[in-house]
Amino acid sequence: MDTLLITQQDLKQIVARVGIHALMDGLLHSLERALQEFDETQTEVRKREGFLLEAPQPGVLEWMPVMRKGDSVTLKIVSYAPANPRRFGIPTIIANNSLYDVQTGHLRALVDGVLATALRTGAASAIASKYLAHPDSRVVGLVGCGAQAVTQLHALSRVFGIERVLAYDIDPDVQKSLPARVAFLGLEVLPAPLEVVEAQADILCTATSVEVGAGPVIRGTALKPHVHINAVGSDLPGKIELPLAVLERSLVCPDFLAQALVEGECQQLSPEKIGPHLVELAKEPARFQAWRQRGTVFDSTGFALEDQVVTEVLLQHALALGLGTVVQLENINGSALDPYGYVFPRPGLEVAA
Amino acid sequence: MDTLLITQQDLKQIVARVGIHALMDGLLHSLERALQEFDETQTEVRKREGFLLEAPQPGVLEWMPVMRKGDSVTLKIVSYAPANPRRFGIPTIIANNSLYDVQTGHLRALVDGVLATALRTGAASAIASKYLAHPDSRVVGLVGCGAQAVTQLHALSRVFGIERVLAYDIDPDVQKSLPARVAFLGLEVLPAPLEVVEAQADILCTATSVEVGAGPVIRGTALKPHVHINAVGSDLPGKIELPLAVLERSLVCPDFLAQALVEGECQQLSPEKIGPHLVELAKEPARFQAWRQRGTVFDSTGFALEDQVVTEVLLQHALALGLGTVVQLENINGSALDPYGYVFPRPGLEVAA
Repeated sequence: MDTLLITQQDLKQIVARVGIHALMDGLLHSLERALQEFDETQTEVRKREGFLLEAPQPGVLEWMPVMRKGDSVTLKIVSYAPANPRRFGIPTIIANNSLYDVQTGHLRALVDGVLATALRTGAASAIASKYLAHPDSRVVGLVGCGAQAVTQLHALSRVFGIERVLAYDIDPDVQKSLPARVAFLGLEVLPAPLEVVEAQADILCTATSVEVGAGPVIRGTALKPHVHINAVGSDLPGKIELPLAVLERSLVCPDFLAQALVEGECQQLSPEKIGPHLVELAKEPARFQAWRQRGTVFDSTGFALEDQVVTEVLLQHALALGLGTVVQLENINGSALDPYGYVFPRPGLEVAA
Repeated sequence: MDTLLITQQDLKQIVARVGIHALMDGLLHSLERALQEFDETQTEVRKREGFLLEAPQPGVLEWMPVMRKGDSVTLKIVSYAPANPRRFGIPTIIANNSLYDVQTGHLRALVDGVLATALRTGAASAIASKYLAHPDSRVVGLVGCGAQAVTQLHALSRVFGIERVLAYDIDPDVQKSLPARVAFLGLEVLPAPLEVVEAQADILCTATSVEVGAGPVIRGTALKPHVHINAVGSDLPGKIELPLAVLERSLVCPDFLAQALVEGECQQLSPEKIGPHLVELAKEPARFQAWRQRGTVFDSTGFALEDQVVTEVLLQHALALGLGTVVQLENINGSALDPYGYVFPRPGLEVAA
């Protein structure tokens, strides 16, 4: 049986033929609809679990499973290894997304998870910002200018009329290199000191590799009253980016509450101080509309539903364009009753394939 | 960065060039050594978790993670869909095994898990039998003649001087087809009624798809006093193959206690009635030697360490033979800080690959 691989080269073809903006717009549309239609009796999302990695900097390797009952399981395996860029010149976050048929357990597809994760994390922030940020938000602040900042800004730029982007990173080289990386957006992107970013942003995205116990990353003492913050970096117990005082005066909306309580900014809050989660926002945006004039936080730890959606979006593009590589990975073309059927042909035994 | 795929076709080449017996012998050797050397401070094995599938028959899709600290994570994704053979002509158990570098999180290899699971499950039973079965065991009884029976018998045949095999399956067609599937072993394999199999076996393997709540599968009232049973089928809460009375009078040895208590025959026992686990047997076989004259049970639920070993054995063969397909699955050949670096080339931005 076929397993379809969507590799880096296929992604390049998808972007070339679909267009980077159309790809993001389609994902925004699909993800928002999936959130609006989410039904926990039909879709089972598991909290991320994983191993702690004891590399030079602590990291994790985790699995994020989600099942659409009667249809498919999507399972992302994702690692967070913050020393990767400096040590190996490769991304902090590496992942793959696999898709299984629940009737048989067959691996239908395996898709890169690096681009997929960046895309869906950006899309989730843009959707949360649509519900929570001031509708006339014009200044985006980026705290942390690494890989995730690129898709945070890209996704936000598809939803808001951004006039200026102020960008800060603790690493001056990373800060300096951001404008070229996001030049395709045609926005004014200025490196700026942290206090300027904090003071001027209507929408602030924190996407840092701050170490466990070293946060918060921002000061939060001179934010705009209506600021909306997408807190993207928290993804480990003890890793936080926002001061407690900011959380306490804001409406804090996690993507996935059970996980945010363990790994997100919500670690700092008791459950009764936490606002609606992303699905609630998507289902009833009007209910929380008044908050667009006040301080809000999207606590983005990463939600397996987002991985399901982006995997399907990328697969749909690949299928429509005839892309991808088919492999017979699983040893199932042979006899159902004979694991040696195909791999060890013997006289008198028929083999299906 | 390269991800090496070991597909069904590669497995066929490995078997053709290494030989099916040498493959099994090498696995038996590697697995026994891994059990003997197992150090829980260095290797972290997680209990299997998963989704319940609501197909025509209940099944599961599960993940089995194991980390060798400072080196690698092996993660098997495995499904159990007992209606597969009848409905789709494909195996009950479908799986893939992936191997990650813990320094970076990079997916180093992806290997079929169907053959791998059958091989390692057979090997585990043979090793447990070596420690627990009567050393002069000559009659093997198989209860359940599906895919797993093939490798149970193959692995046992590499350790014991088997003279006769008695095979029972609730499905007469499956029972009848077994002798041809294991003819390559050159053993006398006879279909037999369940009571004959039970009465004559020195080593009994139960590997059935009995439904939850429908067990036990054997009666256990006329077993040989020294019988060793490899109970392979239990892998779900409520799924059991052996009567409680057999467990109560036997030394019951789980592969992985925490999991066997939830999914194995050990579900039926209170913890104090459970004997040494497989690692303890491998480390101190002499301590349990007297049990070879008495009734024993290997409660095989599947141990992620076995998946780690078989994945590495298959990879080593593939590398030695120059087999496998290299793909650039992950979008990491580009800029560490730019998820669009490779997939969306822009003037002025360098791309590594």
